[in-house]
Amino acid sequence: MSFLLSEIASRLGGEIVGDGDIRIDQVATLSSAGPNHVAFLASGKYRHQLDETSAGAVILGKRDRESTQKPRIVSDNPYVYFARVSQLLNPAPVVEPGIHPNAVIGEGAKIHPSASIGPFCTIGAHAVIGEGCVIQSSCNIGERVVLGSRARIYPGVSIYADCIIGNDCIFHSGVVIGSDGFGIAMDQGQWVKIPQIGRVVIGNDVEIGANTTVDRGALDDTVIMDGAKIDNQVQIAHNVVIGKHTAIAGCTGIAGSAKIGNYCKIGGSGMILGHLSIADHVDISAGTMITKSIEESGAYTSIYPFAPHREWLKNSVHLRHLNGLAGRVGQLEKHLEDLEREKS
Amino acid sequence: MSFLLSEIASRLGGEIVGDGDIRIDQVATLSSAGPNHVAFLASGKYRHQLDETSAGAVILGKRDRESTQKPRIVSDNPYVYFARVSQLLNPAPVVEPGIHPNAVIGEGAKIHPSASIGPFCTIGAHAVIGEGCVIQSSCNIGERVVLGSRARIYPGVSIYADCIIGNDCIFHSGVVIGSDGFGIAMDQGQWVKIPQIGRVVIGNDVEIGANTTVDRGALDDTVIMDGAKIDNQVQIAHNVVIGKHTAIAGCTGIAGSAKIGNYCKIGGSGMILGHLSIADHVDISAGTMITKSIEESGAYTSIYPFAPHREWLKNSVHLRHLNGLAGRVGQLEKHLEDLEREKS
Amino acid sequence: MSFLLSEIASRLGGEIVGDGDIRIDQVATLSSAGPNHVAFLASGKYRHQLDETSAGAVILGKRDRESTQKPRIVSDNPYVYFARVSQLLNPAPVVEPGIHPNAVIGEGAKIHPSASIGPFCTIGAHAVIGEGCVIQSSCNIGERVVLGSRARIYPGVSIYADCIIGNDCIFHSGVVIGSDGFGIAMDQGQWVKIPQIGRVVIGNDVEIGANTTVDRGALDDTVIMDGAKIDNQVQIAHNVVIGKHTAIAGCTGIAGSAKIGNYCKIGGSGMILGHLSIADHVDISAGTMITKSIEESGAYTSIYPFAPHREWLKNSVHLRHLNGLAGRVGQLEKHLEDLEREKS
Repeated sequence: MSFLLSEIASRLGGEIVGDGDIRIDQVATLSSAGPNHVAFLASGKYRHQLDETSAGAVILGKRDRESTQKPRIVSDNPYVYFARVSQLLNPAPVVEPGIHPNAVIGEGAKIHPSASIGPFCTIGAHAVIGEGCVIQSSCNIGERVVLGSRARIYPGVSIYADCIIGNDCIFHSGVVIGSDGFGIAMDQGQWVKIPQIGRVVIGNDVEIGANTTVDRGALDDTVIMDGAKIDNQVQIAHNVVIGKHTAIAGCTGIAGSAKIGNYCKIGGSGMILGHLSIADHVDISAGTMITKSIEESGAYTSIYPFAPHREWLKNSVHLRHLNGLAGRVGQLEKHLEDLEREKS
Repeated sequence: MSFLLSEIASRLGGEIVGDGDIRIDQVATLSSAGPNHVAFLASGKYRHQLDETSAGAVILGKRDRESTQKPRIVSDNPYVYFARVSQLLNPAPVVEPGIHPNAVIGEGAKIHPSASIGPFCTIGAHAVIGEGCVIQSSCNIGERVVLGSRARIYPGVSIYADCIIGNDCIFHSGVVIGSDGFGIAMDQGQWVKIPQIGRVVIGNDVEIGANTTVDRGALDDTVIMDGAKIDNQVQIAHNVVIGKHTAIAGCTGIAGSAKIGNYCKIGGSGMILGHLSIADHVDISAGTMITKSIEESGAYTSIYPFAPHREWLKNSVHLRHLNGLAGRVGQLEKHLEDLEREKS
Repeated sequence: MSFLLSEIASRLGGEIVGDGDIRIDQVATLSSAGPNHVAFLASGKYRHQLDETSAGAVILGKRDRESTQKPRIVSDNPYVYFARVSQLLNPAPVVEPGIHPNAVIGEGAKIHPSASIGPFCTIGAHAVIGEGCVIQSSCNIGERVVLGSRARIYPGVSIYADCIIGNDCIFHSGVVIGSDGFGIAMDQGQWVKIPQIGRVVIGNDVEIGANTTVDRGALDDTVIMDGAKIDNQVQIAHNVVIGKHTAIAGCTGIAGSAKIGNYCKIGGSGMILGHLSIADHVDISAGTMITKSIEESGAYTSIYPFAPHREWLKNSVHLRHLNGLAGRVGQLEKHLEDLEREKS
């Protein structure tokens, strides 16, 4: 698979500067690119690499138009442009349609003839698998699950019964969709299980990373809206709602019934407590715990700064006495005020 | 599956107020219930929804007895009552006993004739699978594993050799029981692996959430006692002991040899360091890290409060100088004291 | 499997004190050992258990040589010695070579005749499986994957296409290697997926714990070097480099393009942000978030200390006003200075 630089620009737009007849067969970073590669400059931080790159061509922004003499494509958003070029050069592998002979298909399941079902898959009774879906090996699709068109499901994914998935979704290995939420009630020294009878309902164009888990709703559904992107090892509890085009980085936990707005960006290893709401366009830093609702868009953080262990020891001990310290400062202020008053 | 409201009360107790002949086929929230649903009011926060609910009947506590005119069941603990009604209306699906013809069963394995073994399962040699167990597809049960009665094992669970599981346990997809603990010893620049020869021993009525991992003991066993409830993506390291009826929310890590008491509640995304003990009836807030033993029951917390990023920047910088700040306050106090002394 | 104490010493070194003819069939802790067990004392903390142990023999360090009258082996590093004895007494189970008849083997895959491929495995086209590999049930090995000699792969592991794994690696159940990194670019309200075309390249003697995920590189590779040891539920993002003999405890997240040095020890439930470098021999405490590069070896920490919830409430509220508090202290200092100046 390869394209002339000019062919790329005629498909994806952007201005060609220099020789458009150079043949490109892959994207690469500035530092590792070779003569048949197109590299990209999306951040000023890497501008110094322009001089030394062996890339055949470069994608860059308008203000970097003259930063190199190489053949180049100038684009408003060179990072997005690079993404589109990479999609062009790296299409998903073509998969033969068909159901592997050892797959176990439940009664009444409807599998589109263009779909591919890998070995060791189980497709539950009355499940619906849409056009062009690719379900790789060892996946377990529960009864009555509806999977929209063109899903790409990697090996070892489990989707529990009754969940509904839109079109163009990608689920990576180890994803679990629709497991029971953590619903228990204490009754005289015993936890009583609350049956989790809601579903997981996922929109279109949602990607979910490896080993991420999404619990089904307790009564109503857990919902992930169109265009949401979720990284690896994220835990999404029952009745959570994730808004459109919200991105959640790895290892984050979203507790039960939290409602996350649209276009939020949530850093990794954080946590969002349950039963709260996050507005649209909220950015949450990595490692941050959100303990109450956020009504205004903006950036929010709760990182305790790291330090060499010895310094940390000396400083952190005061956190246990911060109320006392604040009280002492108040006393000092009062004391000084008294002194002033006496003087006058 | 449906019951008259009066039939529910005659099975589960509680006082019926109003028409007991209404037919109920499902539980629901106040806001989404329909005329054949029973909703519940467990928290005053939702009382305003009573007026607008379309529920056919409501479960509520004694002090809310007259908060609605709908047919209702008055119970001491409406949340537990709702759980029991939901269990009544949503029994586990009936599963045909039997071993799927493609399952691979090891030599000497004993599988109770009432158990169900799904497709693509492997049952190791000399494993014992108890009465009424349901092992769904693609599960891997190791050699000599003992699984008590009525286990419900969702697709894609792995249990390593020699682990012992009690009765009435539920393991969700992706659970791994008995993987090696993280036991390594540094020898002249190389890590030497310490064989992990203990087991995991799990009591009765334990539920374990999706993608949770429980490592086997290094020498002695890792133990999870009766009635413990563990959410998704929890990591339980080697030689941990989890007490009876302790509940652990998602994404929490319990490090090696920690001993957690009975009836503890551990919030999500937290961590408990190794080789320490937590007393019974300890509540640990979400996102909290426990760094030493806790000998008294009660609630414990270590959350760094989040704030808008700009405010956080201004405040957090002082954490690196807290020792200095405390010293300056001490100096000021001394200084003022000196001034006082001079004056008198 | 059993050895005379003297046989152990002749294989592994160390000085025998007392009866070398005692027969040892297992290792155990001091508190649970029986007469055919060898226990070990690696930390002074457990010295009091020496008097009461029923162990047949003990491994201990030079300064504890006379702390017991039992038959004993004196070693410079009793913990490493114990690890080696345990390896001797607990060799990996012998596995019959061969490919399970139901495994699905892709075209052109090369599987060494001494390797064992379990039931329900898929081996992709042109994959290479080395000498003595043991791949247990339900593993999915992608196309063109190269797996070195003597790998031990537990049930339910997925390795995506094109990844390269060295010799003597151990991957536990639920491990995912080579899933797509979290690469997305925002284009006019839509996330555009950036194809992840790098690989994961893993060196020799790397152990990876249950449900850990390692994403493939976006353009260049994600790299884990020789001898690295990674615990359960660790998330390693795209283009991360983990140095030689670095150990990472459970539930830790390493964000994209972070470079971790050799011989680092990273505690559990922590996080390392992306695009930064950690020097060799850095120890990072559990629960610590690293937000910028670390250039000097040493120990680093960012733990917020836990406290009883009520104390925490009283103290933590001041964190939101720390800048104000510091300002007030500055004002007080200035004020006192002014007073002093007036006096003189």
